[in-house]
Amino acid sequence: MNIEKLPTQQENFSEWYNQVIQRAELADYAPVRGCMVVRPYGWAIWENIQKALDQRFKETGHVNAAFPLFIPMSFLEKEKEHIEGFAPELAIVTIGGGQTLEEPLVVRPTSETVIGHMYAKWIKSYRDLPVLINQWANVVRWEMRTRLFLRTLEFYWQEGHTAHETAQEGQEETLRMLDVYADFAINEAAVPVVKGRKSESEKFAGADTTYSIEAMMGDTRALQSGTSHNLGQHFAKAFNIQYLDRNNELQYCWTTSWGLSTRFVGAIIMAHGDDQGLILPPRLAPIQVVIVPIYKNDEEKAAVLPVAEKIEKALSAFRVKLDAREEMTPGFKFNDWELRGVPLRIEIGPKDVAKEAVMLARRDIPGRDGKISIGIEGLAEKVGDLLVEIQAALLQRATDFREAHTTTPSDYAGLQEAVQNGWALAHWCGNPECEANVKEDTKATIRNIPFEMQGESGKCIICGAPATDKVIFSKAY
Amino acid sequence: MNIEKLPTQQENFSEWYNQVIQRAELADYAPVRGCMVVRPYGWAIWENIQKALDQRFKETGHVNAAFPLFIPMSFLEKEKEHIEGFAPELAIVTIGGGQTLEEPLVVRPTSETVIGHMYAKWIKSYRDLPVLINQWANVVRWEMRTRLFLRTLEFYWQEGHTAHETAQEGQEETLRMLDVYADFAINEAAVPVVKGRKSESEKFAGADTTYSIEAMMGDTRALQSGTSHNLGQHFAKAFNIQYLDRNNELQYCWTTSWGLSTRFVGAIIMAHGDDQGLILPPRLAPIQVVIVPIYKNDEEKAAVLPVAEKIEKALSAFRVKLDAREEMTPGFKFNDWELRGVPLRIEIGPKDVAKEAVMLARRDIPGRDGKISIGIEGLAEKVGDLLVEIQAALLQRATDFREAHTTTPSDYAGLQEAVQNGWALAHWCGNPECEANVKEDTKATIRNIPFEMQGESGKCIICGAPATDKVIFSKAY
Repeated sequence: MNIEKLPTQQENFSEWYNQVIQRAELADYAPVRGCMVVRPYGWAIWENIQKALDQRFKETGHVNAAFPLFIPMSFLEKEKEHIEGFAPELAIVTIGGGQTLEEPLVVRPTSETVIGHMYAKWIKSYRDLPVLINQWANVVRWEMRTRLFLRTLEFYWQEGHTAHETAQEGQEETLRMLDVYADFAINEAAVPVVKGRKSESEKFAGADTTYSIEAMMGDTRALQSGTSHNLGQHFAKAFNIQYLDRNNELQYCWTTSWGLSTRFVGAIIMAHGDDQGLILPPRLAPIQVVIVPIYKNDEEKAAVLPVAEKIEKALSAFRVKLDAREEMTPGFKFNDWELRGVPLRIEIGPKDVAKEAVMLARRDIPGRDGKISIGIEGLAEKVGDLLVEIQAALLQRATDFREAHTTTPSDYAGLQEAVQNGWALAHWCGNPECEANVKEDTKATIRNIPFEMQGESGKCIICGAPATDKVIFSKAY
Repeated sequence: MNIEKLPTQQENFSEWYNQVIQRAELADYAPVRGCMVVRPYGWAIWENIQKALDQRFKETGHVNAAFPLFIPMSFLEKEKEHIEGFAPELAIVTIGGGQTLEEPLVVRPTSETVIGHMYAKWIKSYRDLPVLINQWANVVRWEMRTRLFLRTLEFYWQEGHTAHETAQEGQEETLRMLDVYADFAINEAAVPVVKGRKSESEKFAGADTTYSIEAMMGDTRALQSGTSHNLGQHFAKAFNIQYLDRNNELQYCWTTSWGLSTRFVGAIIMAHGDDQGLILPPRLAPIQVVIVPIYKNDEEKAAVLPVAEKIEKALSAFRVKLDAREEMTPGFKFNDWELRGVPLRIEIGPKDVAKEAVMLARRDIPGRDGKISIGIEGLAEKVGDLLVEIQAALLQRATDFREAHTTTPSDYAGLQEAVQNGWALAHWCGNPECEANVKEDTKATIRNIPFEMQGESGKCIICGAPATDKVIFSKAY
């Protein structure tokens, strides 16, 4: 472990982010530019995210499958907007088994096209609908500026792809999965998110409408944390996904897609972390409780270690780890597990053993305020309660932070200032030119058009024209 | 559903295999030659395989991570045998983001090289050892002759990669994971396997020694179902994976790798299936129990369906499905679920309701012999017992089949005949020429050198030279 101090978030948020990831061993740079190795501790967070989402997908009637990594180049060209959006980002296989391929193969940047091709083959009648399939997969987009978790050439995600009889069912599915993402973000990751519609310029290449959940990071920038697309009949027409309806007439399906990626690990790091490192929400933390035994000599060790082991057993309902490493001091271990964001630390030394007590230290409340001494009896119950409390406290803190950094400027000058350090809520007329002006003047973009604020009309904060949509302007990752 | 009869296994085992996979909706051909779509029912089997293996990996101290899809071409060239083995099978990305790449990227056929590169970076001291990492991933090998699950361009697998202080620890790990595979195959998949060492000509490109588990399929061919490689210091030297030992001296690590793939789904299909279709082992079956309600009119339906629903609830500890589809006859459903290999079927009609009983039908015992009428009370317990019984019966049947088709020929003529319809156990002198002769004369190869038979020396069945190894000769997938 690197023993230099982390840069503070104030000093350099970006450098803080990079160093936390590497020092906490979440991920590392791969030898290929822009690619990432997700190390065991980082992957364990992703596995917990997968479990929480997969359960929600299954509860809403979805099943998993696996579609191929390689897509014929011609498939992407079938949907005009889709290929325009993805063409600059493609990785292309031109050689296979020592031969130059007749048709180059694209390494999937997303799978609408190849899945559309299969759905056209599988779907015959309204009886086959809806088709509700998800896949957990790796995808590749040739990004120029990359950052661990946030934007890498290869990343991991789930992509849901569904086909429906009617436009209404497609829209319901699109919003249902947006709700699933928001529920996951809020209740599993303790990351408060705003659900809304993306502007035309920010929507998915090939979608009718894209919806997103947006979260505020610790430097007040926004992070798009999950998206759900109503694809209308774009891909159904491009790939001939048709079904015989109840009147025996051939109709095109209505399709959707929705995805959440390892980018979300970045959201967790940046929404909750502090100058000491990560703070992981208990529900997703690979280690929820770490036990650090404290002793100065063999005699103390003989008194302390067996009790520490007993506590480890008593807490087996949690993801618990006893840190019995010999070559490190307790102080070093405290720092190490703080860096790694373990929500709760249990310290136990000879005096605690004598009192039949332990010291509990909350990661989310640094220093003495976060420490309580508590009897060993009934410890498991207390730990369970505290983990619930920490989970709730993280959500509350992130929500408070977002609210404290969200303003409603009344004119364009105010907007320009507001987006330098936070989110600005303001009316927008819907004109892409106004949107582009803000981007040019401030680097902020329209994150989404939140559901909860619609209905109040006003004047566009940029051009003054009548506006029905109130939107979030913010710099973003 | 296709209503034509399946070809029997006798008529055409290969065609039986292809049709079962497609009709039971396990997998389908992707638009790219040799690639596969694993459909939800097939993927659910793989997910159950993943759970069973992953639990065993974690119990033996392993953690999961994710390494990149793309590997610089130069990496593969660092280990001479490795590149010789894999060069003809590579898929190569030459274009990224619209530009021709300076160094082509290989789509990983396996990850020893890139993982070796990272281990060299991460491992400093003996304190960092052992490193015990697994990844669940897709890999690509440009195969010419492909078959669903058995040999596809892209396939899914897990690959474990470990690094150790000593040769002995590396060997222990290699054998430990072979044991894990055998335990999984026998106790989860009900597929009896033989553990043994591969001959030099059949070992992994870059390994010191390769071990395998080999299973007999329903046509008596062998299927290599999992492999574990002792890599010695080959990759440690090629990638400079070094550590400071307890005397502060720099040493090369000893590494291993081991993998089991979606090929195993093919093993399950071919080890257990019959002329009616799949027979899935209860522990891995996506649906363990299917309930088919039987009624002729609305009145009967009103009597039967609520009871069927009550039974579904009562069996919620199992993976249970109530097939309430309206547009199909019970007979059609029976065939459909038989094709899909569901281990246990519950039939319930008006007469059963009147008796407060149901009819249970075992998939592994066709016809009347597999049927029993049983009271609804205590059904869950009976179902649990029966699933255990079916699991054991499948293992017994596959073991009996293997034994019935394994012979010990006494001369070369006998060997040539024996491998036409089964496995032959015989002594082999260790000379690759003898091995090559058998392959040329019979198409059979040495599957492995089983642990359990060593120690008896004799004469090579091909050349008559003294031989210590007794081996399995067989045609193989």
